[in-house]
Amino acid sequence: MTLYENLANQLEESIRSGALQPGARLPSVRRISSSRGVSPATVFQAYYLLEARGLVRARARAGYFVAAENGEVPQPQTASASGENSVELDVADRVFTLLDSVMKRNIVPFGSPIPSPALFPLPRLGKSMAAAARTLSPWATVDEMSPGKQVLRRLIAARYAVDGITVRVDEIVITNGALEALNLALASVTRPGDAVVVESPTFYGALQAIQRLGLRAVEVSTHPHDGLDLAALGQAIARHQPKACWLMPTFQNPLGCTMPEDRKRELVALLALHRVPLIEDDVYGELYFGPRRPLPAKAFDREGLVLHCSSYSKTLAPGYRIGWTAAGLHADAVKRLKLSTTLATSAPSQLGLARYLAGGGYDRHLRKLREQLAHQYAGAAHAVARHFPAGTQATRPDGGYMFWIVLPEGTDAVELHRRALAQHVSVAPGPMFSASGQFGNCIRINFGHPLDARAERALEQLGKLAAQLVPG
Amino acid sequence: MTLYENLANQLEESIRSGALQPGARLPSVRRISSSRGVSPATVFQAYYLLEARGLVRARARAGYFVAAENGEVPQPQTASASGENSVELDVADRVFTLLDSVMKRNIVPFGSPIPSPALFPLPRLGKSMAAAARTLSPWATVDEMSPGKQVLRRLIAARYAVDGITVRVDEIVITNGALEALNLALASVTRPGDAVVVESPTFYGALQAIQRLGLRAVEVSTHPHDGLDLAALGQAIARHQPKACWLMPTFQNPLGCTMPEDRKRELVALLALHRVPLIEDDVYGELYFGPRRPLPAKAFDREGLVLHCSSYSKTLAPGYRIGWTAAGLHADAVKRLKLSTTLATSAPSQLGLARYLAGGGYDRHLRKLREQLAHQYAGAAHAVARHFPAGTQATRPDGGYMFWIVLPEGTDAVELHRRALAQHVSVAPGPMFSASGQFGNCIRINFGHPLDARAERALEQLGKLAAQLVPG
Repeated sequence: MTLYENLANQLEESIRSGALQPGARLPSVRRISSSRGVSPATVFQAYYLLEARGLVRARARAGYFVAAENGEVPQPQTASASGENSVELDVADRVFTLLDSVMKRNIVPFGSPIPSPALFPLPRLGKSMAAAARTLSPWATVDEMSPGKQVLRRLIAARYAVDGITVRVDEIVITNGALEALNLALASVTRPGDAVVVESPTFYGALQAIQRLGLRAVEVSTHPHDGLDLAALGQAIARHQPKACWLMPTFQNPLGCTMPEDRKRELVALLALHRVPLIEDDVYGELYFGPRRPLPAKAFDREGLVLHCSSYSKTLAPGYRIGWTAAGLHADAVKRLKLSTTLATSAPSQLGLARYLAGGGYDRHLRKLREQLAHQYAGAAHAVARHFPAGTQATRPDGGYMFWIVLPEGTDAVELHRRALAQHVSVAPGPMFSASGQFGNCIRINFGHPLDARAERALEQLGKLAAQLVPG
Repeated sequence: MTLYENLANQLEESIRSGALQPGARLPSVRRISSSRGVSPATVFQAYYLLEARGLVRARARAGYFVAAENGEVPQPQTASASGENSVELDVADRVFTLLDSVMKRNIVPFGSPIPSPALFPLPRLGKSMAAAARTLSPWATVDEMSPGKQVLRRLIAARYAVDGITVRVDEIVITNGALEALNLALASVTRPGDAVVVESPTFYGALQAIQRLGLRAVEVSTHPHDGLDLAALGQAIARHQPKACWLMPTFQNPLGCTMPEDRKRELVALLALHRVPLIEDDVYGELYFGPRRPLPAKAFDREGLVLHCSSYSKTLAPGYRIGWTAAGLHADAVKRLKLSTTLATSAPSQLGLARYLAGGGYDRHLRKLREQLAHQYAGAAHAVARHFPAGTQATRPDGGYMFWIVLPEGTDAVELHRRALAQHVSVAPGPMFSASGQFGNCIRINFGHPLDARAERALEQLGKLAAQLVPG
């Protein structure tokens, strides 16, 4: 037996014995190389062998992970057809009905848009908030209404800098969560009647905003692995002269996919050529499973055309409603719109959060959170592989807490949603994410909640219900 | 000398000696009657005599007050002409320029829209907030996103009930301050192109919202004493078929005037007849100088057509950004619009405020605040009487912290604003409050800040600058 076979067999034993759980990251090549006294090439060969045996799989930039024991469902490989037309919308009702249902605590929340609030350091955050509230000075309650507290904007700008992204403190506007940031950004760069490019499928919040502002949605197909189709985007720009793109290039909601960085660079160059502002939704950017944060499109923006939107709601402080946009050229317009719509963001919330961030501990919390989400993903993917009908495909996100399941052709996801809800399980059916009602056989699954026994059973129930709905 | 002359002379002596200061409220008729052992009729006669001597003045429902020593400037008696046309707007720039200037701390803030943040019980509120933040449960961060925390909505409904106003808990939606409530209310009942009735002069926030939503403003003249001209409103309804009225019937911003309750009742009946929703801005309603809260129009609404909007920003908790609307028939629409624009209001802010309110002390704080504002008003009115040019008129608010000064015909209020700002004093010039740029000789004065020596001097400066601008 060669060195690398020997190493592969030892690792296989660890996996089969359960010492390395499905979803766990294997030690880095460098670490094994030094601890076992073998060359990095030997380690690579061992990992390749394990991959060939179906026991581990590689994820771009993230290293090797233990595969789900019964194998995995295949990834969907084709993007949806791009809408050639712009579409007027009526998405409100189906979305609100869903939101109502998923917020009930007796429902297993696979359809929920939020991760479990139990994943966050609320007691420590509460202490920071308490200290900020007790020492709040009278003038601090009314200072810097819009763009928001400078102390917080500085902390946000510093974090961009650490990630190698240049953002000026004075282009940051603090908002009531990312949703307000995205809405203000869109309203700041459009007028009623304008066309706006969205992904297909896309976050339904984008469709609601487009509908409310009297805009037209242009859907551009988005690949379940690589993200937005740039050739289709080019055609859509030529055909519709959109006044904005609203995109989520990292850990896209609902697909979970991420555009590779070179494609993000291309995207920004293409939009710059046509002077189309990019509203970049990056609320999951910090929730990566790999070794570093995927750069947002904002990192490649040289002209101030990217309005980068994010928040602490998914990473640290749900319910505090603190988000922001780094809005480039459009920062003043966003700031003014904020002043005349909601005026300001809660001062104690802003200052409490700033105090927590300044005190350290955010990175430690994030590392734990990312590990937990990666672990939950592995568990959910595993259960889907075990329980869902043959022919099911699923995306393989490298971050965030959503993945996208394509059921066998003709399976009615809206009916699945209904039947599941009757059994106290929610899923988000595909048509919620499309202006034109596509994705009738798709569902979005939220793996942001611990996969306890009840949730495991719920995935089994879902698989059975789906199997009943497969035509023929 | 009769009994009442004797009593009047004693009181006059107290006033002349300074024992009773300008702006102070005289003891109630009942109290004097019992303490002096004279009949109530005698006390009334004494007060009438003092009024005739120009030493005291009566305020509706509020009792008698010591007049400013040099007399007072007369009240303006005529309303502006009603705009017969609806108007497209461009108010943004002049408003934002003003807001930028008044938020600077080195400026004497007579043009500011907010009262002094030093008037609020921030340390006690901070303790409630601290306790709420430390005990915030994970699910409380994401529960009841919209319409907002039930514990807070119940407290708000209970307060309406105490004031004799019937409001259901489930028609209340918590918002990021009253400004969001008003904006959501307007967007919920209109579509682009609709006409909306506003007062003339009106709060500029209404004009900004109308402009942003692509609506048309119909200005209806508003009397400096009695409020909106109901006959003119009837004509405006017939001519323009407005889809909403946005009004401030109590302590109107900028006039400071209040519609008598019987006229509010008429207003609601007129709007009900034509099924026109009323967006009622009542943010100063708790800041009355008289013996009780003036009833809002909402109190007379039997059909759910009044969307009553208020907040804690002006009465208790500036910077916390907690407001609400009791939106009647339109509550669901408002709730949904909130969900898709800013999602929710800061959970710790809501729960901190609820904890403060439940703990008692709000009423005691409000009594102190009202007295302080009444006192500051008397001081400011006195200084205006002393320092402003002959021919100046001023409204006499019974609450809130704004009054309206009409300078002699032809005096340029915008130029006054500019020259004052150069001397580090702000005023809000009249044209800010008009879609059609009326009120060129008017200014709004904020008396919500303690009238210290610097502020006194600033009013003297303002009077001198105004005198220089009175034409020939």
